[in-house]
Amino acid sequence: MGPDQLARALRERSPLVQCLTNFVSMDLVANLLNAAGASPAMVHDPEEAAELAGLASAVVVNIGTPSPRWVEGMHAAAGAAHDRGIPWVLDPVAVGATAYRRSIVADLLPLQPTVIRGNASEILALATQAGAGRGVDATDDSEAVKGDAEALARQTGSVVVVSGAADVVTDGERTELVRGGDSRMPLISALGCASTALVAAACAIIDDPVEASVSAMALLARAGQAAGGTAVGPGSLRPAILDALWATGELA
Amino acid sequence: MGPDQLARALRERSPLVQCLTNFVSMDLVANLLNAAGASPAMVHDPEEAAELAGLASAVVVNIGTPSPRWVEGMHAAAGAAHDRGIPWVLDPVAVGATAYRRSIVADLLPLQPTVIRGNASEILALATQAGAGRGVDATDDSEAVKGDAEALARQTGSVVVVSGAADVVTDGERTELVRGGDSRMPLISALGCASTALVAAACAIIDDPVEASVSAMALLARAGQAAGGTAVGPGSLRPAILDALWATGELA
Amino acid sequence: MGPDQLARALRERSPLVQCLTNFVSMDLVANLLNAAGASPAMVHDPEEAAELAGLASAVVVNIGTPSPRWVEGMHAAAGAAHDRGIPWVLDPVAVGATAYRRSIVADLLPLQPTVIRGNASEILALATQAGAGRGVDATDDSEAVKGDAEALARQTGSVVVVSGAADVVTDGERTELVRGGDSRMPLISALGCASTALVAAACAIIDDPVEASVSAMALLARAGQAAGGTAVGPGSLRPAILDALWATGELA
Repeated sequence: MGPDQLARALRERSPLVQCLTNFVSMDLVANLLNAAGASPAMVHDPEEAAELAGLASAVVVNIGTPSPRWVEGMHAAAGAAHDRGIPWVLDPVAVGATAYRRSIVADLLPLQPTVIRGNASEILALATQAGAGRGVDATDDSEAVKGDAEALARQTGSVVVVSGAADVVTDGERTELVRGGDSRMPLISALGCASTALVAAACAIIDDPVEASVSAMALLARAGQAAGGTAVGPGSLRPAILDALWATGELA
Repeated sequence: MGPDQLARALRERSPLVQCLTNFVSMDLVANLLNAAGASPAMVHDPEEAAELAGLASAVVVNIGTPSPRWVEGMHAAAGAAHDRGIPWVLDPVAVGATAYRRSIVADLLPLQPTVIRGNASEILALATQAGAGRGVDATDDSEAVKGDAEALARQTGSVVVVSGAADVVTDGERTELVRGGDSRMPLISALGCASTALVAAACAIIDDPVEASVSAMALLARAGQAAGGTAVGPGSLRPAILDALWATGELA
Repeated sequence: MGPDQLARALRERSPLVQCLTNFVSMDLVANLLNAAGASPAMVHDPEEAAELAGLASAVVVNIGTPSPRWVEGMHAAAGAAHDRGIPWVLDPVAVGATAYRRSIVADLLPLQPTVIRGNASEILALATQAGAGRGVDATDDSEAVKGDAEALARQTGSVVVVSGAADVVTDGERTELVRGGDSRMPLISALGCASTALVAAACAIIDDPVEASVSAMALLARAGQAAGGTAVGPGSLRPAILDALWATGELA
């Protein structure tokens, strides 16, 4: 399914995407899902996370600003998604940076995320258990970790998406590259988190998570490219990407 | 009081509006209150919520991303507002979606919110105790739930505001409609939450909460309409609404 | 070091700035640091705050939306920064407003912040222990509290930055003023918090915290002034400031 078809399907079906996502990303994740036609629900507490996952079409678990109670909620929501057989997508933000993040991800992986979406350093840290990352910014080239991404996909059974100048999407056997976007996109905080949420929304529409991930990343890359044509810098690029995503669904 | 007069009064008196609001809405609520001339204070923890309510001119309680400690803070702030006789406004985000949200709202209603502001599905869920909502997006037409809003207002003693293509404002006896805005406003995440905060700010200026709610919703609708004239999509609409709100106070 | 040189150095060295900052400011702080070339990491929980501070080049502690567990994390991160001898910057948001905030700041001061950055009412409240502030907005003129800022700097050993129409930077002996900016900057929520983070980033580049603070405030003032030339109001001013910051590093 091409990005146009995905945009149209999101607009028509408006899948409910439950997001347990970090504080930095809350605003952009919600607005990007809305602009793309999906319906975001930020519901995180153990008091209700599993119940809401019972209504959702997909779940996002993003460990960007973790704390023990949020991690409880993540297990509740991801566990419910796993049990119901709906897609859930893991964003292992800065997993290489602290022991706490490594242990959170190690505990979540048995719940079998449909997709793991990270930048090159995060995927490398996961793949090698090396704890090499220093934060949320990509210190490695996405294509350079293609082999690691494939190994991680085979090891976990998850589709792995490495975002970067070229996005790598792989299930360990099939590997696809998505090119496009704008060079200033990495300067928009949490745009990676928002791409994770868009992948989750796409997984609610398209059964094959490789195809869903490719479609979602292509849709965002194209919106970024279109937005980059008029944007002055990263500040104006952000609303322009939302406008471009919305216009894709509008025209499709 | 017309929207121009409200804008001028907000600019002159800059009421301190304490907001216990969800994580998605923090940024937009604060910026929209600032643009409109009010003074936001995001103070939520039980350690200080009641004390700050002692300084505030109005309080907002928004249950969008609830957890037990935040709910404690909500009771402290709303209780202090109630005891001091200052207005407080309840935003029952997605109240129909989970049992937890229904119980939070049921426990807050005895503190007699001055205004309850929601979308059609939220007001319907409250009015019918049916738990019919599936999330934060309006699944019902605002005018179609006018009768439910009036019944809820009579039952609770609160003014009820249902936002939608036409906003319904009612105390159960008087019912007014506010039209205007831009069709892409629902795609801006948390703009509904921000309208709740603007209603609270207006209640700090205007004694009659029906008139305050009508003025606030009319001010936002007009700003949205003005902003819509230049906006390309929901991304550019958001800063344009802030600009338009600010310009209203500037010119008034 | 002039603002151009600072912008170039930030772009080249991309210092990792750990931010324990309030919920309203998360988005803008991260995006402003990114636009300026620094690398933000929002890591707050006691489970990992000290460990991340071991990797960071500077730490920001902002008390805007405090709660007990976050305060624990603030002590862990500031303590680690203090022990490692890296700069940490305190933003005492609305410290005059509640007893809780006064006690949080009193407990953090022994960890010897490199810089304290606040508005006039916050610095006045700290300097006089008067608890005179009513919230996050400046109710006093920055230059009018110059003497209080100097006294606070001598008392604490921290550099004190008072932002306002003219920013005051002092270590109690040397005092410098930074002028510029745009009159609508105070209407952008959390832009003060973002200036605190930019000061922290500058402290990671420039050893003298007076010079670092002057450079950072001058860089932001100039970006605000440039952005103000095209901005319609506070809504469009915000992305324009990010664009202008980015362009400074791009051209430098």
